[in-house]
This record gives sequence, structure tokens and C-alpha cells, in this order.
Amino acid sequence: MTAKRQDLLNMLCDLSDLSALVTGSENIENFLQRTVLLVSGHLETPVCSIYLYDETADELVLKATVGLNPEAVDRVRMGSGQGLVGTVMASSQPVCEGHASQSPRFRYFPETDELLYESFLAVPIRKGVVKIGVLVVQHTEPDYFDTTDITALKATAAQLAAVLENARLLMDLQRMCSIPEKLACNQSFIKGQRAAGGFAFGRARVWGKSHVRLIAGPDTSESGDMADFRRAIGQTAAQLDALQRRCAERLPESASLIFAAHFMMLKDPKFIDRMVEKIESGSPATRAVRDVAGQYIQLFTDSPHPYIREKVSDIEDLAGRLMSNLVPLADDQNGNSGGKVVIARELYPSELLKLAAESVAGIVLANGGVTSHVAIISRSLKIPMVVVQCPELMHLDEGTPVLIDGDVGNVFVDPDKTVIDRYDARNQARRQVPVAAEPQPAGPTRTLDGTRIHLLANINLLAELPLAGQMGAAGIGLYRTEFPFLIRPSFPSETEQYLVYRKVVESMTGKPVVFRTLDIGGEKTLSYADAETEPNPELGLRSIRFTLAYRDIFEQQVRAILRAAAGSRTPAIMFPLISSVDDFRKARQVVTDCLDQLRAEGLEHHDHPAIGMMVELPAVVESMAEFAAEADFFAIGTNDFVQYMLGVDRSNKRVADYYRPEHPSVLRALNRVVRVAIEHKKPISICGEMAHDETMIPFLLGIGMRRLSIDPQFMPAVRTCITGLTIDACQAYAGELLAAGSVSAVREILSRQPNLAA
Amino acid sequence: MTAKRQDLLNMLCDLSDLSALVTGSENIENFLQRTVLLVSGHLETPVCSIYLYDETADELVLKATVGLNPEAVDRVRMGSGQGLVGTVMASSQPVCEGHASQSPRFRYFPETDELLYESFLAVPIRKGVVKIGVLVVQHTEPDYFDTTDITALKATAAQLAAVLENARLLMDLQRMCSIPEKLACNQSFIKGQRAAGGFAFGRARVWGKSHVRLIAGPDTSESGDMADFRRAIGQTAAQLDALQRRCAERLPESASLIFAAHFMMLKDPKFIDRMVEKIESGSPATRAVRDVAGQYIQLFTDSPHPYIREKVSDIEDLAGRLMSNLVPLADDQNGNSGGKVVIARELYPSELLKLAAESVAGIVLANGGVTSHVAIISRSLKIPMVVVQCPELMHLDEGTPVLIDGDVGNVFVDPDKTVIDRYDARNQARRQVPVAAEPQPAGPTRTLDGTRIHLLANINLLAELPLAGQMGAAGIGLYRTEFPFLIRPSFPSETEQYLVYRKVVESMTGKPVVFRTLDIGGEKTLSYADAETEPNPELGLRSIRFTLAYRDIFEQQVRAILRAAAGSRTPAIMFPLISSVDDFRKARQVVTDCLDQLRAEGLEHHDHPAIGMMVELPAVVESMAEFAAEADFFAIGTNDFVQYMLGVDRSNKRVADYYRPEHPSVLRALNRVVRVAIEHKKPISICGEMAHDETMIPFLLGIGMRRLSIDPQFMPAVRTCITGLTIDACQAYAGELLAAGSVSAVREILSRQPNLAA
Repeated sequence: MTAKRQDLLNMLCDLSDLSALVTGSENIENFLQRTVLLVSGHLETPVCSIYLYDETADELVLKATVGLNPEAVDRVRMGSGQGLVGTVMASSQPVCEGHASQSPRFRYFPETDELLYESFLAVPIRKGVVKIGVLVVQHTEPDYFDTTDITALKATAAQLAAVLENARLLMDLQRMCSIPEKLACNQSFIKGQRAAGGFAFGRARVWGKSHVRLIAGPDTSESGDMADFRRAIGQTAAQLDALQRRCAERLPESASLIFAAHFMMLKDPKFIDRMVEKIESGSPATRAVRDVAGQYIQLFTDSPHPYIREKVSDIEDLAGRLMSNLVPLADDQNGNSGGKVVIARELYPSELLKLAAESVAGIVLANGGVTSHVAIISRSLKIPMVVVQCPELMHLDEGTPVLIDGDVGNVFVDPDKTVIDRYDARNQARRQVPVAAEPQPAGPTRTLDGTRIHLLANINLLAELPLAGQMGAAGIGLYRTEFPFLIRPSFPSETEQYLVYRKVVESMTGKPVVFRTLDIGGEKTLSYADAETEPNPELGLRSIRFTLAYRDIFEQQVRAILRAAAGSRTPAIMFPLISSVDDFRKARQVVTDCLDQLRAEGLEHHDHPAIGMMVELPAVVESMAEFAAEADFFAIGTNDFVQYMLGVDRSNKRVADYYRPEHPSVLRALNRVVRVAIEHKKPISICGEMAHDETMIPFLLGIGMRRLSIDPQFMPAVRTCITGLTIDACQAYAGELLAAGSVSAVREILSRQPNLAA
Repeated sequence: MTAKRQDLLNMLCDLSDLSALVTGSENIENFLQRTVLLVSGHLETPVCSIYLYDETADELVLKATVGLNPEAVDRVRMGSGQGLVGTVMASSQPVCEGHASQSPRFRYFPETDELLYESFLAVPIRKGVVKIGVLVVQHTEPDYFDTTDITALKATAAQLAAVLENARLLMDLQRMCSIPEKLACNQSFIKGQRAAGGFAFGRARVWGKSHVRLIAGPDTSESGDMADFRRAIGQTAAQLDALQRRCAERLPESASLIFAAHFMMLKDPKFIDRMVEKIESGSPATRAVRDVAGQYIQLFTDSPHPYIREKVSDIEDLAGRLMSNLVPLADDQNGNSGGKVVIARELYPSELLKLAAESVAGIVLANGGVTSHVAIISRSLKIPMVVVQCPELMHLDEGTPVLIDGDVGNVFVDPDKTVIDRYDARNQARRQVPVAAEPQPAGPTRTLDGTRIHLLANINLLAELPLAGQMGAAGIGLYRTEFPFLIRPSFPSETEQYLVYRKVVESMTGKPVVFRTLDIGGEKTLSYADAETEPNPELGLRSIRFTLAYRDIFEQQVRAILRAAAGSRTPAIMFPLISSVDDFRKARQVVTDCLDQLRAEGLEHHDHPAIGMMVELPAVVESMAEFAAEADFFAIGTNDFVQYMLGVDRSNKRVADYYRPEHPSVLRALNRVVRVAIEHKKPISICGEMAHDETMIPFLLGIGMRRLSIDPQFMPAVRTCITGLTIDACQAYAGELLAAGSVSAVREILSRQPNLAA
């Protein structure tokens, strides 16, 4: 090609006035055709083609060409990754071939006559991160295209992207009209992530969709008179009462109020009387229930307040119960979740509890995410739960058989018999062999050279206390007090908290218990507390900031802790997310005030709790000496600490590669924090996930950490790990890690698996 | 009271079985009545009442009582803050009065006979942060209630809250049905925040609502035949063409593609032909436009992709233009924004540009928030903008006169003549006296004792370059390259970027320019790039993480910078949000690869740019020595740095008190970072808001900072500040600040205003 560079510039100038090109074209097809003509002219190449991406079919479609057979337009289609053009699309990288027919990826389309063209150059067309298509030029002469051509074609594709994106969108519209509102891909198997172990098989109930069916009505005729209606109300009340009791048995923290809204509605004259009126004026009872419930659901759905919208499911549930007590419905239409696999976009902990009370078989969360507390509660309730990224599942027909495997995270829609049999067998086997907990050695855990390491338990729910005892926990290093808050429909009262905390204290019989004050906000939102949504909840009004803002809630909790700790030996109160000495003093003042109140009221309580704080924010590191002068003890929450040090949301999969607990700055900051605490003779523990990570434990011991607070199930492995280490070897190892200046250097050292028993 | 404590416990036990109380009640009123009876019995007090909060009327309503006149129920109403009961509600604090009638807040309700009762005790009923009502007990005997009673009543209120909340909700429903979908409070004045200065008066256009009107149809009869339709299309194309040209004039970075989607639709046979078909089969042209546009809007609105939903406004706009070219509409119905005050929930920068092209008079953002780049663009375009927290404004009637004052942040709805005259006069005065920029001294800025301080400019848009020159900037310390990206409907091509960057280089004639690579994500989202929304965008795929993930976009930008820098003396490339040495090396490799490409292609470029990084993440501090061995220079972005150090979103008003640039750990970390940079002889600048904060400048100079990069308008004040300081005094002052261990201690020192000229 001669004078190539000048021609290239000319082309870019021509293209830069795209609007003229658009304005001068009769329609989109004509615009595309003019574009390929222009490019082929400037690049002096006989063939130029544009393929656009059809997202629904996941195929590239030839939309315009010069040089290839014009009949091929709209007929040549290839999957992403197929042939040279598909490869460009899939890899988002240009492909330049001097002898195209010899390439292993070459694919021949007889419609196009393209065998004639040996030189092939194609670049992806993308608008930002959205794939639009591929721009291709071809030439008969082998090895015809060079680097300049690649640059030119890339520039052209970039220039065209915005206009082509609009073109593609408009072309897509026709298809968009005809997509049914059903499960797009009738997938029989969906790979997800496990959230709570176990296996479940049952008919699907799509959560949050039942009101649609409810209002539209089932395929039965309307029926029921006033007597039927009154009887249905009585039955419903009795059922709710039974459910309520079952709830309290399974999770003692859940008070009897989970079904409060149901009861109130059953007592509400506006709600019930409207139904009565309709029945009196001739409407069948089923129709009356449906009409009134429908009105309420509409009102609640439109509310700007999340705590009102959340009640939609209560009305759905109540109306569903009334209906099924009026008309015996088929099992898959009665709105009850017993024995079913519930498919939900997301669930509040209180909703999970209601499902548990109804003996749901298993749960699939279809929106790709689960908050840690919902997973924890599900595990504690032994309800298998799988998280999948497949919103289409919400369109699944109610009643479709679904099998979920919470151990590995698999979902089978309408599984065949072999799958069911395989899981049945596994389930039988599991039931026959109860998992026997390894007997744990009595007495403290020590390293090989005799240094004592305190292994403490992280506890969320009362149900976990027995395991902590069984595993030989030296105490509770972190009791997450927010769980009784999260699983309830409203803030528990001081008395209710007192009763729960008292059980924690009593179960530990003299061993230390660290109560962390309410750590909500961030990913742990309470629907009833959050009037506003925040654009960055992890950087928002969470944790100690929330309790300092709502001092009465804070005081109720502190009072409940102090009263529950009456008579215990070593209770401790710990504040989360402290950012400054000023914050700490304010929070401590609340404890002091509560102690004054309790003394004045003459209520039994503990008068001298230790008062400590979490190290979670980077700001703590530089002021650690000042904090050590004020706080009685510290616990490092590595999960949050890493998150803020590196500016990475640890639950965001898109930036998972940037969440690096082994980052050199994290290790160095931990070392500084521990050193200052030791200098000031203040106990310090670690309670994030790093504390049970066996590759990190030698480092933690090496920098002087002597207290690890972990989930009880990790204790046996962590104990084994510790008993194989000597402090000297750990110190040397930590020194080596602290000297590494990059993540890759740290990883290299960690991967070496040194002998630390020397 | 005798045996009070025992009775209190009895009461709490009774109440803890609330479900029994609920189950046993006939209806809500009856439940409330049983509750007050129970409380008055246990507390041995003749009067007990429950007031519930009516949110819509902002009033407390007496809902149940023993002791007061039962006729008063539902009739006694008081505003929040009115009387003793209203005070409890407003303050969320208990009130206990021994001689109620003597309290200045006491208010007499004749219906109640309450004058008889001198002892008054009331506590708020809240469910979490939601106000529900007030629980009151009263007694004839003065000074009857004590601390134990307060505790008991608080516990009772907490216990009742969840049930009462449901009760209140159900009682509210009736009212909810009847609320009109109109501006609730016919406010004539709304206090907001300024986002862009200036004053505007015009008729309201409610943005994003016009399609509702469009589909419903205006109050004119349908009209227009095929000839009218063809003519309207021609006129519309001509109008769009003119708008496009105006856009490019006002903001050179905006390419000609802002209206690309409009043009494509005008050319789209499916879109236009469907209208033609309808007209051919007898439909008037206006009806045809409305029907087809309505279908498209419906389709786009339902799309899961934000970049498709964003196009709804394009269709609205296009259809509105077609309509007004078919039927001359009244000014307030033509959908055009010229001369109007646009009220929008929020705006994308590209939408703002379109409004600017139409010569919008002013903008009100009704959702309480504005992203910094939208405010910057509005200021640059000289469009007054006010942000208010008043979503009801979206229900304002189109065409209502609205006056906005962007200088102080006021909005007047349907203002009277005095308001209009006052602003008119102010506007006249402003036009007559053009603001003359103070002549800036030639030569470098020096402290009183002669140390040179480099005053550099932060630049967002080409339009700001003249001011930077005028203000005597020593160079550009931070060119935010994302603005050309933000204001466009799609990624600019390499060539388009090159043309913009070249203008920056040329305008600086030999002075240094630091190009910061694309810093998008976080609050600066590109609708066309963000397929997914993130729960915490500030901790997500933003900035360098985005460009490393989309390497072709990164390469296009780096190539454009390197080419634009050809022949310049001191170009520099800076990476934002670097968290590890590993990240930095990866990003630098992209520059190296681009240099190799440009050399191979023989394109003119700069071959040895300085390569530096932002210090924004806490993780950088502990590894600063390793970074200083790799990077050529540093710039500290204090806004983000403070945000991550303290874990506080700086745009979240709920936690504004926790965003503290003067936090001791922030100051100490800055000191460490600067010290290491100086030791390694690497230039370091500061470019966050702290750099123009005159209370912080002495500290910054004291720790060795010699380069401040600030918005040009701050230069005169900062220069004056610097020329009054000596380095010795600043060093001593910085030492004092670094020794302070709490935020309050730092604030105390900062407020002293010491003499730093010694």
C-alpha cells in the first residue's frame, strides 16, 4: 500500500464527520453499507464487512459487506468464538492473519466466497464494555496487512462504535418485543455457590410472586360464604400460633413477634370488615379475600419506605393462608412453603425465619448475592441454601421440581431420576453416619515450644454455643450481638436482649465473654431501621456510628449486657468501627452513664466490665498509642481492616483480585498495631478470617499475637497447626514477610511452606 | 409506690406475652385499650394514654386512654413539639414533670380534664428510628414518678413498639388511599444547596415525565397528514443538526455524537416506517408518533440495562420535537427546555449537555444529591443549578413559574413579584459589573522567608485553561482526563482524546502537565460502561482497576496522551487509586507497551514521560519506600485518602461528622508519606481540597510539602496565605499538630490562629 499513512488520516477525517454520513443515509442498512465502502476505499482493500452481535442468540450476524456475496448479509451467522471473526469477538483482541486459510481457527462459509482472500484483519467493535460486533477487511494478496493497518482499523472501529451501538439496538427491538416473560434458557442445571450445606428436593415456590397469582386468582371457581370465612379466620389464627411457637423453639433469639403483623391484620377491622362487607353484599369469600388483599398489596408496594414494602410478603402470606383454609388448593398453589424449595431474589433474615417455621426444604437465592448473616442463620437452622446468578429463575413455573445441593452449590431444575437417586443415596448415607466431633484435648493450646495461645470462639447465635464448648474454646472472643436484632422484625427490647445475653454468660461458666455492641449497617441492614439507602453503605452510618446516633438503642443494649453480666468474672464490652479517640470516649461515656443509671435503679449488674475496641479502620494504626492509653483491650477485625486499607468491597466479585489480606502494607500495619498493644500491656486478639487461615497463623504468632478468635468448627485444625510451630521460627518467618515489598513477593514466601517447627 | 420493683417485673412479664394480648383483643382499638389498662394497673397510676403519630399530618393523635375523658380519643391532636407530649415526640427523650401545670411547655386540652394531674411522665415509642407515638402516665399527686418509673415506662414502650407500629400502619392505610399524586406541600420556598452559581427564572419542565404526557396526549385534537409528517421529520433533522453544532461550541470536548441516537432513530425504518404505516392506514400523524414512541419507551423502560434505559429520554426528546413540528404547541407543552427551569431527579452529564444545547435557563435536582462532575460541568457551562431534598417537586405542574438562586441554593415555586424584582435587580447589577480578575504577580510564589512553593492547577475541562493561565499557575498538577469521557454518550476514540489532550499541552506552552489516567467508577459512573451496579461503588471496580480490566480502553488513552505530548518538555502520566507495587508495575507496563507500539508505527509521540501515582489508599503509607523506588513522582489525593482512612463516604450527609481531614492519624500518615518521598528525592504534590484550605496550608508546608495543586479560582487567596508564612514557624506548628492525639485536640490547636510569620 502506498501513501498509506495519508490515506489513513483522510479516512479518520471522513469518519469523524459521522453525523454527515448518518444524515446522508437513507436507513441503517444503507448507513452500514456506506461505511464499509468508505473503509474499503481508504484501506485499498477489496473486502470490508461489518458483523453485529445478536445478544439474545449469542451470535454474530453479517450486516454489511463489499467484496463478499451481498446475498450473505443477514444469513451468515456464527457463534462467539467460532471462526476467525468469532475469535475476535470472544477475545476482544484484533486478529491479523497473512494466510487465513491455513489458520486452525479459519471457518469457511460457502455463501461468502471468502476462500479467495488470504489476508484477514479484524478488530472488535465495542462501546465501552458492551460488545457490538466485528469490523473485518480482507485481501487476496498474502501478508498484506501491517501494524499501521491494525491501528487504522482499531481507530475506525472506535469511531464507529457509538453509532453502531444505536443501530444494533434498533435492530434488536423487533426481537425484544417477542421475548416471552419466561425462563429464557430452560436450564436443567445451574452452577452456583454454597451458602448453607445439605440437600433438598421439592417443588418450587417463587417467593414474592405469589401476590400476582393471588390477585389473578387460581383456576378454581370462587366459593365460600360468611360461615366459611369465619372458620377460615379461626383456622388461620391457630396455624399462626403454632408457627410462632415453632419459630421460638428453633432459634431462641427470635421472640414471639415474628408473626405480629399477621395477627394485627387478622384483628384489623378495616382489613377483615372490608372482606365481611364484600361477602355480605354477595361476593364469594375467596373473591373478597383476594380483592381486599390485592388493594393492600398495591398500597404497600408503592410505599417509599422499605419497612412497609417488606410487609407485602406478610399480607401475601396471610391472604394465602386464608385462601387455603377456604378452598383446599393443590399443594403447589397454596402459598405454603412447607417441603418446598423457595426461589427468591433475596431474603431478609425475618423472612428466612418464617420459612424455617413452615419447614421449607431449601432455598435458592437467584440474584447472585447473599449477606453473610443470612447464610449464617440458614446454616444454623440447617436449611440448605444455594446462591446462583440467574434472575430468570424467578420466572420458573411454581411447582416445578427442583433439587439443590448446598454442599457444593448446585441447582437442578426438573432433574431426571438418576440425579434424584444419586442425591437420595447420599442423603441416606449422611443420616446413617452422624458426624462425630473429634474429642478435643483438655487444657490450653500451646505451641511446640510451650507458649500458650488462647483459642477463643466467634459466636453469632445461641445455637452455636454447644459446639464452642465441645471444641474447647477458652472463651468467647467475639459475640456478635447484632444477630438477635437481624432475625427479628423490630429492635428487641432491653429485657429481650437481657434474656439472650444471660444465656450466653451462663453457658460459658466463668470463661471470658466479649460482647461486641451492635454492628449493623453496611451489608447488615435492618429493614426497620433504614429509612434511607446509602450509595456506599460500608462507608456509611453503620456500627458504632449508628448506635451513637441512636443513643436510646445503644443504651438499651449496654444496659442489657451489663445486667446479663451480673456475677460473671470477666465480662467485656467492645465497640466496633472506632475511628478516633473521640469516638471511643463518647461510646465509653454511654457505658458509664448506663452504670450510673443501673446503680440508681438498684438493678443487679456488673460494675466493672473491661471496655475495648475493634481495630478495623486504617486510622487506628497511626494513633494506636493514644488508643492503648484509653482502651482495656483490642480485637483486630481483619476482614474490614483489609477492606478499608485497600479500598475494596470484599463481597464484590468484580474486584476480588484486589482484596489481598497478604498485602505487605496490611502485614506491616498489623505488626505495628500488635507491637504497640504489647508495649502498653493491653490484650489484643484477632477475629477476622485471617485468624483461621493456616498459612497466616505462623505470621500472626511471629508478630506476637497470642489470642485467636475463630468460628468453633475451625478449632481442631487451628489447634493442630499451632502445636506444630515454635515461636522463634515464626518470628524469623514474620520478619521475612515484613521485608517483602509487593503482593507477589509475599505470595512467593507464603507458597514456600517452610519448616516452622525448628 | 410500694413493691414497685416486683410489680414492674410482673408488668414486663405480662407484656412479654404480647401475642396473647393481641390474640385476645377484638380489634386494634380494643388492643390499645387493654394495653393502657394493663400499664395503669401495674404502675398504680390513674391515667395512662397512648398517642400515635400521624406522619402525613405531622400530628400526634390520642388513640387510647384510661383516666382521661374517653370522648377525647381520636379528637385530641397536637403537632410534634407542641405541649409536653409533643415535646417527647420531637426530642425522642422522656419527659418527667412533678408539677406539670407549671411547665412552660404544658398545654391544656379541655376535652381531657387533664388539669387535675400534676405528675406527668411520658416516653417516646419508636421502632428503631421510626417514630410511632408517645406513651403517657399521669397522677394527681405531685412528684409522684421516680427513676424506676421512667425505666419501667421506657421498657414498656420498647416492648410495645413493634405491635403498635403495625397498628399505626393499618390505621394509616385509609389515608394512604386518598393522598393525591401531587405536590404534597404547596411550598413556595425550598432551601437547598448550591451546585452552580447564577440566577434563573422560567417555567418548570419536569424531566423524565414528558413521556407520560406524550403518550396520554396533549389537550389538542389529533392532526397531521403524510405531508405534514415528512415536513416535521425534515424540520426535526435540521433542529438536531443546529443543536449538535451548538453543543460542540460550548464544550469542545463534546464530540458531534451527543445526538447520534436521535439521528439513528430518524433513519430507522422500523421506527419511522411504523409511523408511516399508521398514517397510511388513516391515523393522524400526531397519534402515529405518539403510539410508536410509546411502544419504544415501554420497551426501553423495561430493559435491565442502564444504557438502554438512558435512551428513554432520547426517544422522548425526539418524539417531542416531532410533535411540536407537527402541531405548534403552547410553550409549556412542547417538551423543549429552552428558557425553562428543568426539574430532574438526577442527570447524566450527557443529558446536561443536551439541555445546555437547548439553552436551558436553570436546573433543580430534586433528589438531594449531585455528583461532583455534574456540578463542575454545570458551572463550566454557566447553568445555575440547585440541589434540594424534595422528591415531591417531581409532581409539580409543568409550566409553573420557578425561580432559582444558584449562588445560595434557593428555589422559589411560583414566586410573587417582590421576589422576582429583587432577583432581577441583582441580575442586572451583576451584568453591569463584570468580575475583573485580580492581576496575579509574575514569577514563582515564595514564603516570607523565600522558599519556593509551586502553585499548580487542577483542570477538568478545556474551558478552564484560560483561567489557570490568568491566575499564574506554574503548570497543571492534575488534569482529570475523565471529563471528556463523562460528558459523552460513549467512549471517545484515541483520535478524539488526542485532539483534546493536544489542546491542553499547547495551552501550557512548556509548563508541566500531569495527565491522570481515567478515574471513573465510584461516584463518576459512565452509563455506557456500567453493566452492573455495585453495592459499594467507592470500594468497587473504579479508576485504575477499571482501566486494568479493560486494557484496550486504557491503551487508547495512554496512546492519545503520549501522542499529544509529542515535543512537550515535561509531560507526566499519573495512575489513580494504586493499592500495591504490583498494580503500579502492571499500569506502567501498559505505558511501556504503548511506547513500543507507537515506535513501531512511527507515530509522533513523547518517548520518556514521567510516570507517577496518586496516594489515595491507606495501603500506600506502609509501603511508601517501595513505591518511591518505582514511581517518578507522587500526588496525594486527600479527599479519597481521608475517605478510606476513616471509612467514611464523603458525599454521605448522614456521616458528615465522621469525615475529618484533621484527624490526627491523617496528619501523621501525610507526614510519613511526604518524608519518605523527600528522602527518595521524588517530587510530591497534594491535590485534594486540603491543598486550598488556608487553615491546613501551614501544616502542609511544615511537613515539607512544596507543591500544591488547586482549582484556579483559589490561587489568589492561597498565594496570599503562603507569602505570609515562614517555614520555621510552619515546622514548629506541624510538630505541635502531629503530637495531638485526638480530633478535638487538633481542632483546638487549629482554632488558635497562631502567628506563623515569625
